[in-house]
Amino acid sequence: MIADRIRRPALLDKITTAEAATALIKDGMIIGMSGFTRAGDAKAVPIAMAERAKTDPFKITLITGASLGHDVDRMLTEAHILARRMPFQADRTLRAAINRGEVMFIDQHLSETVEHLRSNQLGPIDYAIIEAAAITEDGGIVPSTSVGNSASFAVLAKKIIIEINLSQPAELEGLHDIYFPGRRPSRVPIPVVACDSRVGFPYVPIDPDKIVAIVVTDEKDSASSIEAPDADTDAIAGHLIRFFEDEVAKGRLDLTLHPLQAGIGSIANSVLSGLAHGPFHHLRMYSEVLQDSTFDLFDAGKLVFASGSSITLSTACAERVFGDFHKYKEHIVLRPQEISNHPEVIRRLGVIGINTALEFDIYGNVNSTHVGGTHMMNGIGGSGDFARNAYLSIFVTKSLAKEGRISSVVPMVPHVDHTEHDVDILVTEQGLADLRELAPRERALQIIEHCAHPDFKEALSDYFRRACARGGHTPHLLEEALSWHEKARTAGTMVPLTRM
Amino acid sequence: MIADRIRRPALLDKITTAEAATALIKDGMIIGMSGFTRAGDAKAVPIAMAERAKTDPFKITLITGASLGHDVDRMLTEAHILARRMPFQADRTLRAAINRGEVMFIDQHLSETVEHLRSNQLGPIDYAIIEAAAITEDGGIVPSTSVGNSASFAVLAKKIIIEINLSQPAELEGLHDIYFPGRRPSRVPIPVVACDSRVGFPYVPIDPDKIVAIVVTDEKDSASSIEAPDADTDAIAGHLIRFFEDEVAKGRLDLTLHPLQAGIGSIANSVLSGLAHGPFHHLRMYSEVLQDSTFDLFDAGKLVFASGSSITLSTACAERVFGDFHKYKEHIVLRPQEISNHPEVIRRLGVIGINTALEFDIYGNVNSTHVGGTHMMNGIGGSGDFARNAYLSIFVTKSLAKEGRISSVVPMVPHVDHTEHDVDILVTEQGLADLRELAPRERALQIIEHCAHPDFKEALSDYFRRACARGGHTPHLLEEALSWHEKARTAGTMVPLTRM
Repeated sequence: MIADRIRRPALLDKITTAEAATALIKDGMIIGMSGFTRAGDAKAVPIAMAERAKTDPFKITLITGASLGHDVDRMLTEAHILARRMPFQADRTLRAAINRGEVMFIDQHLSETVEHLRSNQLGPIDYAIIEAAAITEDGGIVPSTSVGNSASFAVLAKKIIIEINLSQPAELEGLHDIYFPGRRPSRVPIPVVACDSRVGFPYVPIDPDKIVAIVVTDEKDSASSIEAPDADTDAIAGHLIRFFEDEVAKGRLDLTLHPLQAGIGSIANSVLSGLAHGPFHHLRMYSEVLQDSTFDLFDAGKLVFASGSSITLSTACAERVFGDFHKYKEHIVLRPQEISNHPEVIRRLGVIGINTALEFDIYGNVNSTHVGGTHMMNGIGGSGDFARNAYLSIFVTKSLAKEGRISSVVPMVPHVDHTEHDVDILVTEQGLADLRELAPRERALQIIEHCAHPDFKEALSDYFRRACARGGHTPHLLEEALSWHEKARTAGTMVPLTRM
Repeated sequence: MIADRIRRPALLDKITTAEAATALIKDGMIIGMSGFTRAGDAKAVPIAMAERAKTDPFKITLITGASLGHDVDRMLTEAHILARRMPFQADRTLRAAINRGEVMFIDQHLSETVEHLRSNQLGPIDYAIIEAAAITEDGGIVPSTSVGNSASFAVLAKKIIIEINLSQPAELEGLHDIYFPGRRPSRVPIPVVACDSRVGFPYVPIDPDKIVAIVVTDEKDSASSIEAPDADTDAIAGHLIRFFEDEVAKGRLDLTLHPLQAGIGSIANSVLSGLAHGPFHHLRMYSEVLQDSTFDLFDAGKLVFASGSSITLSTACAERVFGDFHKYKEHIVLRPQEISNHPEVIRRLGVIGINTALEFDIYGNVNSTHVGGTHMMNGIGGSGDFARNAYLSIFVTKSLAKEGRISSVVPMVPHVDHTEHDVDILVTEQGLADLRELAPRERALQIIEHCAHPDFKEALSDYFRRACARGGHTPHLLEEALSWHEKARTAGTMVPLTRM
């Protein structure tokens, strides 16, 4: 069994315990760890690290693909191991430590982290800790349910610790397409020209002598914590379907649309699932995380191919997909996040990007990350990679939060992740604002009319009217622009006095 | 003479006056006009349009490459011709009309406009009005001192009006490299792999039957209005030279650096010229506008090749360059702005982008466009194309404006063009802040310490300290964050009370 998973016999000697592997990690090291949106994360060694730190305190810089499962970020935070963390996280405990200023969090575009490593602006990585489905005869690493940054971590790290996870299906082998952009100045075009382009290796080619420890595990990926579609997400999906139908009618799209990307999270996932109810067919995805919605679209016969960097599913969907994996395997590829999110490829393919906003302002600037403008939620993730380079950049959110006390449409966002230049379409359950080729004053009218909740429409219009009287290309009343958020901070609500 | 410039005899019949050509333009049309940073702009027809509108009012949507010379934007504004204008401008009169809400200005990343045209999200263009150095035997258009968006305008427009400018050197022919990304879904990689890659035609290939009028002109391009270097810009250049030397010492760069981009304007131009005083050699540029500094570096023997979309020079520099053009010609290429600014190529080459900020905040978010957060200056131009995709994204500005009453380093920028994710290095005459791989709280310390003027340092530190006490990944005091700008608006100064 193990010999099927570790097919280079010399490496069998490297099998050890998580505790022993953990002893290799020294204070101050930079660690590159697998894991992207809970999928394919290292599961044993980080937990052993947290255990060890109880009696032997140490600090590291931890770089991953994206978020981790199994409460690993919580355990590492509680063990005070994390000095620095990048490029994304989604853990409640870690988030709190970041917001207290205890963990230095570097929030990066997901396509960029390995560029910084490759050019020695970051790093070097002391240890890569990578979950694998197998190691080939040549010592090549077969990733499991995510690629993320694992391939570059393994290639660039001084040493590698592998977790062979027996619970990950052996059939994952062949799913991955590992390609590295060349070193500058001799870098050539990335040859991905379609969602289903295969341009690299099905494993991560490394020097097997760098593998210093192998830990055998058998724990499954954490299930995605996605919420079910509701009336609001159905309404958002409905608005988008009508918009796409209209674009088809205008001759700008055909019914196969363009390659689709959907950000992680309940709303984008629900919206994508909703496309199954439209007239579209032969859809393709060029995305980062393949969620339940991807397989809903496959099962509905709507989707012909999906490219991503990870597969993150609910427990029920994982059983359905991995129980019958041959049905899906030839229609899927998993790539390094540098390639799944690469500006070059996203612009070439003309991806339609659907990402979730925390809030947006009347001119279409989007806050994806900072609650109240100050407190980090998760991170920008890949939303910037897609929004900037997409054929159509779409942001979705519900118009209200906190039981209606908070409006997601505000006069001015107190933190900008996506500028108005990168935002084409905004959708809430109230409606859709098409902002293409509009000036800011025109954008404001569309956004207030179509996206704001009726409870806040009048106050937004009033702000906009008074700001316009003061003039400017993007009119604002600076003394009032952030007052909605200040009121939310101090009184827990943005609801105008007249409605309270 | 004319036959050398219009080498397709059948087209000689199309020669007409600017007034006659202007009569073709109808109310409501969309016009694509040549011109990029004052270079290669149409000079006769737009002025005739302004004249005609005095007795025959009409409105158009005007799309250009970037800014125009010859006060054309002023004249068109005063004639009330501009209903809509995109993607960039730099005219005082037009700016005022935009800020009054009279002209709808769509401020776009310069690489993106023709993508919108090609996919019918914008357009169609009724007339392209293009300045040319010549028309070939096949009817191909040889642009003059800029390409900008002219090639795609000509290809996509229903009809074309050409201005043959006899004052533009015939030697410009052969300088241009006209390449168009293919239509999706069959688009292939852009084959530019080095600054000097030539991948297209030396002229714009079009159906010559689309040329409906040719106007012969002989007026030179407007001279650039660049200011001479001063002590502050010398100091900024000095900080950058020391930074690059340090990167070389660390083995991250060699003395040829990476391909350089410098934004339009006095500060970036001065900084680039300053590199002539460093130890660097065999430099290359992959930029949008080739200013005086480009030719200073050529003449200093420091620069081996420059790729751009336009050549915009002072009068003296233009005489030097065009008086001896054979010396430079084989070391220069002019490309469509879609290619000079394309994310794919910028990321591939690893460009070092140097752009000018109006102001930046303590976390490194940059405002490039909106004075006081509301009033448009010029537009984002290509700064976003470069900053997002650069190997190193550098923003420069003087730490003070308005005779010291305004700080360019502020608690929170009231308009964000470049988010902290896209800003690696900030430089003022005070010093340089290296923000790579730093969390926001760490960035603030670097920026306040190295970039802020001493007059404002204490107030910035005080704000930051009090904000940190309230917590958050990016600490702010929302009720105070924009108060510096509000004070500047009402009192004309940001100077703290204790110093006034």
